[in-house]
Amino acid sequence: MNFLEFAKKYDTPLYVYDFNHFEKQYNELKQAFKARKSIIAYAIKANSNLSVIKKFASLGSGADCVSIGEVKRALLAGVDKYKIIFSGVGKRDDEIKEALDKDILMLNVESEAELKRIDEIAKSMNKEARISIRVNPDIDPKTHPYISTGLSENKFGVDIESAKKMYIYAKKSKNLNPIGIHFHIGSQLTELNPIKEASEIVANLVRSLKAINIDIKFFDIGGGLGIKYKDEDTIKPYDYAQAILSTLSGLDVTIICEPGRFLVGNGGWFLTKVLYEKINGDKRFVIVDGAMNDLIRPSLYNAYHKVEVISSVKNPQISKANIVGPVCESGDFFAKDIEVPQTNPGDLIVIHSAGAYGFTMSSNYNTRPRPCEIAIEDGKDRVIRRRETFEDLIACEIDYLI
Amino acid sequence: MNFLEFAKKYDTPLYVYDFNHFEKQYNELKQAFKARKSIIAYAIKANSNLSVIKKFASLGSGADCVSIGEVKRALLAGVDKYKIIFSGVGKRDDEIKEALDKDILMLNVESEAELKRIDEIAKSMNKEARISIRVNPDIDPKTHPYISTGLSENKFGVDIESAKKMYIYAKKSKNLNPIGIHFHIGSQLTELNPIKEASEIVANLVRSLKAINIDIKFFDIGGGLGIKYKDEDTIKPYDYAQAILSTLSGLDVTIICEPGRFLVGNGGWFLTKVLYEKINGDKRFVIVDGAMNDLIRPSLYNAYHKVEVISSVKNPQISKANIVGPVCESGDFFAKDIEVPQTNPGDLIVIHSAGAYGFTMSSNYNTRPRPCEIAIEDGKDRVIRRRETFEDLIACEIDYLI
Ligand SMILES: Cc1ncc(COP(=O)(O)O)c(C=O)c1O
Ligand SMILES: Cc1ncc(COP(=O)(O)O)c(C=O)c1O
Repeated sequence: MNFLEFAKKYDTPLYVYDFNHFEKQYNELKQAFKARKSIIAYAIKANSNLSVIKKFASLGSGADCVSIGEVKRALLAGVDKYKIIFSGVGKRDDEIKEALDKDILMLNVESEAELKRIDEIAKSMNKEARISIRVNPDIDPKTHPYISTGLSENKFGVDIESAKKMYIYAKKSKNLNPIGIHFHIGSQLTELNPIKEASEIVANLVRSLKAINIDIKFFDIGGGLGIKYKDEDTIKPYDYAQAILSTLSGLDVTIICEPGRFLVGNGGWFLTKVLYEKINGDKRFVIVDGAMNDLIRPSLYNAYHKVEVISSVKNPQISKANIVGPVCESGDFFAKDIEVPQTNPGDLIVIHSAGAYGFTMSSNYNTRPRPCEIAIEDGKDRVIRRRETFEDLIACEIDYLI
Repeated sequence: MNFLEFAKKYDTPLYVYDFNHFEKQYNELKQAFKARKSIIAYAIKANSNLSVIKKFASLGSGADCVSIGEVKRALLAGVDKYKIIFSGVGKRDDEIKEALDKDILMLNVESEAELKRIDEIAKSMNKEARISIRVNPDIDPKTHPYISTGLSENKFGVDIESAKKMYIYAKKSKNLNPIGIHFHIGSQLTELNPIKEASEIVANLVRSLKAINIDIKFFDIGGGLGIKYKDEDTIKPYDYAQAILSTLSGLDVTIICEPGRFLVGNGGWFLTKVLYEKINGDKRFVIVDGAMNDLIRPSLYNAYHKVEVISSVKNPQISKANIVGPVCESGDFFAKDIEVPQTNPGDLIVIHSAGAYGFTMSSNYNTRPRPCEIAIEDGKDRVIRRRETFEDLIACEIDYLI
């Protein structure tokens, strides 16, 4: 990656995505499941740029969506509607209606109240709603509490017994067609065992549903596959697939997998430039033109991102520093107490593993326009989202300034 | 406040601001400083809606800005250019240039490197840059680490000795005019003593600068005045002013105060509606249509916001619940383990104290359009920012979808 060239051509702060890396990740995972029918449904929330989604659509990917906006993105980017799933604990009526209208593969239901609501809405529309139910297998995924979702104390899904009741209810309803089952125990998973345990629990539920003539066709194992940010031992797609497959004997199901971070995380970089260096007390700060509004993971999760400094100083001294942005908060940092060479203003800093949950979580805090996003594919670079302007930021306000 | 009516008329999620409350807060603070010349420079970062800024401008307020975007907002909303200050640890060259071009009151300088950069840029433009220097008085403000800024281990400002050197440098330069001094030790301050101590330290610096013929005209005490979120004892404007004034004997300075939260925090509410209730294990969840993308303070700082539930259930049972949004993260919550009456779908939930650092930090995570903002003034309500649409969200991308 010629980061220096990209920074010069497109300015900073900048998100850079390697579409060939995305493809490689997609193919590796798809390949791992080749023993079965499978759908890789890219979790759009990780990086919802239309061109990114289109890239996955062109590979045959489906889409895991968590709002009607994400469903619209998926359709607009060319994802096959029968590969689109709409999940999420809180779907509004208008979202449910629109999803039914758009005839996507299925709605993933997260509570009894929601199931009944979908039933009513489908009835009023004279439609049959294809659904899956998100089961909460009560497994500790051993990840950050904010992205851990598989314990019963979380808001996600329903327990096994409730799920069973809901399937029976759905089976009886004329307007519901329970075709899938779903679990997702957390994000950035690096241990295989919790996933396998969860899969076993859910597969057993599928078996007991079969015994009462409820035939589940889609076995949705969620996303969550971890990536290497620093020195994590990650799960190999092959081992992941084997672990899942080993729990499915005797079941004729299509596997759906909803990876986000695994597909895009390490194929993205956030580029930012040095503005100044300063020393306060015995702390050294490298102040850069990117900030927490552009990439909030360090502030929000205390997440580690590898930071690469391309110093223009000859034989630079190396010392500990904090890499911080211009936002008016001490929480605005990319890295703390890392070894950094001396820099000159304008030197480039590359924040790694920024492809997932980077741009999608960005804001306009401090009236900072959101960065430009570019794609690199087969050696060519192109803009896939232009940098915001001041005019963009006030567009929804200016007409009301009276 | 007729929240039910507003929710019906404008839909949810919705930000509601009471402009009369803003005015009351402004007047109270302005009044407290009446013994001296003073400028209240509203800290735009807290709530940068153009109409909010205009309201303060109409009262005579200045603006504390932290990016050129905020400077532009202030000018557009009618703030007097000689009451605009541009602060921030990382100003880009183009931001410095534009600020000099726009001839605002002063640039608040946060490092030696920046001072030299401003000197060079002013020289190249053949201008004189009016500046202040942000002094870091090394005082513990006793607030959340993310919003505490006055300790030497923070990225903000420079220590007393460096400040002195910088003033001497500025005094000697033809292109710099050091007219102000600045400190800001943190946000949501509820103790007076740290502020008074800081003010004493900085006032003494002003005295020693005077002795060497550097005449500081603007004594900028920053923002940070805390508000009552729950049961905090807060600082009274009168006591605040007295504490500051008591440190300034013998000095003929105009006081600048840069409050954000104090002016707007408790004049804002975030309205959201119940979608579903569910029980997982022994946890009760009330799922609402607002989420962490709309108001991130609970997730980011674990901040407390009072939650008022307007239940339509007759004689509702009350029990502990978490109030959570539809975003795919366990970190997506507004309150945990609070006593909440039973609710029906559609019931209104009012999140209090959402006027500051609410909308400004909002994002489009999960492809969720940002909420509408409305103003209530003299009993009338009006939109001051329309709800985003799906089209707004993809506006910078769609032309690049090839
Ligand atoms: C239901 C569901 N599926 C998939 C994902 C994607 O997770 P990851 O990016 O870790 O693969 C998430 C993430 O929160 C999720 O909640
Ligand atoms: C320099 C400066 N001034 C003013 C403020 C406003 O703070 P508050 O909203 O707490 O008054 C801030 C907040 O971060 C700041 O950094």
